[in-house]
Amino acid sequence: MRIDIITCVPRLLDSFFAHSILKRAQDKGHAEVHIHDIRDYSTDKHKSVDDYAFGGGAGMVLQIEPIARCIRNLQNERTYDEVIYLTPDGERLQQGIVNRLSLNQNLILLCGHYKGVDQRVRDLFVTKEISIGDYVLSGGELAAAVLADAIIRLVPGVLNDETSALTDSFQDNLLAPPVYTRPYEFEGHKVPDILLSGHEARIEDWRYQQSVERTRERRPDLLNE
Amino acid sequence: MRIDIITCVPRLLDSFFAHSILKRAQDKGHAEVHIHDIRDYSTDKHKSVDDYAFGGGAGMVLQIEPIARCIRNLQNERTYDEVIYLTPDGERLQQGIVNRLSLNQNLILLCGHYKGVDQRVRDLFVTKEISIGDYVLSGGELAAAVLADAIIRLVPGVLNDETSALTDSFQDNLLAPPVYTRPYEFEGHKVPDILLSGHEARIEDWRYQQSVERTRERRPDLLNE
Repeated sequence: MRIDIITCVPRLLDSFFAHSILKRAQDKGHAEVHIHDIRDYSTDKHKSVDDYAFGGGAGMVLQIEPIARCIRNLQNERTYDEVIYLTPDGERLQQGIVNRLSLNQNLILLCGHYKGVDQRVRDLFVTKEISIGDYVLSGGELAAAVLADAIIRLVPGVLNDETSALTDSFQDNLLAPPVYTRPYEFEGHKVPDILLSGHEARIEDWRYQQSVERTRERRPDLLNE
Repeated sequence: MRIDIITCVPRLLDSFFAHSILKRAQDKGHAEVHIHDIRDYSTDKHKSVDDYAFGGGAGMVLQIEPIARCIRNLQNERTYDEVIYLTPDGERLQQGIVNRLSLNQNLILLCGHYKGVDQRVRDLFVTKEISIGDYVLSGGELAAAVLADAIIRLVPGVLNDETSALTDSFQDNLLAPPVYTRPYEFEGHKVPDILLSGHEARIEDWRYQQSVERTRERRPDLLNE
């Protein structure tokens, strides 16, 4: 799995890919993440990559030319499964999309910033538009990091324990059950006794019931899917 | 606006808050973001903060004691409007929640990691649980960064142009219209002429129509809200 992220604020993403499972995934050779600065593809002497919107209005727009150069440069090197633009008006991300994307080999993630990218970038280069949720961020960088994290953790070998991802929320349209660890008692609040019973089957049953109950209470919509 | 983020992987978040509008917001004194390492509140000689789940199963669980110490320490210093736990089974974040949270003074954001936090942390300390979307991440750090970014950009004075946030997607239940910038023509693909007409009222009308059309096509659910 190779992910190329195109952004005008590359340093925003530095620490994220240098730590945690994304670092481990890269060290182990399961995933590669490359970050590209749109400014490196500007031919302007000021390295500018944005300009005012035609028609007026607040906010700057990322220009097509540097982005086009960057994408074509990457596409000359290898075939990409998707060129994904992170935008609040894209398809809303959910776990099923993440699962499918995790089966790809090469992905480009394009980050908007300010008011977004020139519409022609979307018309001519982008193959998929994804929103991580119904809210607005100051740029697509965090959205790209979210998508990359969600995908890369599913690549075989990345998580230490392969069964771990299968018991996550959403993988079976159920929220995860509550979890407890030591100490057994905290200021009078104890762990449910069933979890200390040693009866594996009964514990599984309790967890399933808790999952169903929590889903019914918090997200009944998931049960109807 | 002050945001305190509690995490066991503080370095993951370093670069987000050191760049872009979050840096500017802090430099200008509009917002403060403080990151706290749960390990600093462990009394264990190995500074451990997680342990196996009671009842067995894959994945580690963050212990209550260091988190409780950290939260109480902060609450001794000032009053917090909310202690928010980022979790996939929380209330799904949307722009209305962000708008309301941006009116608060002090917020604590607690990041889960591995299988999450001991349920008693949620029962005893957390006042609000938020999910940034229906997918699973390797930890709550990116979710906290997303929430902090979405909130802080709404704090008055943070965006350079105050009108900018009001024309974002979702603020009026409409997706944003397409945007264009120079050059006027890219490999034969031109900017819509209306945007060069100079007729402000007609341009506004065109943008509104485009917004409605795009929303009807991509997110008809928003029009019924």
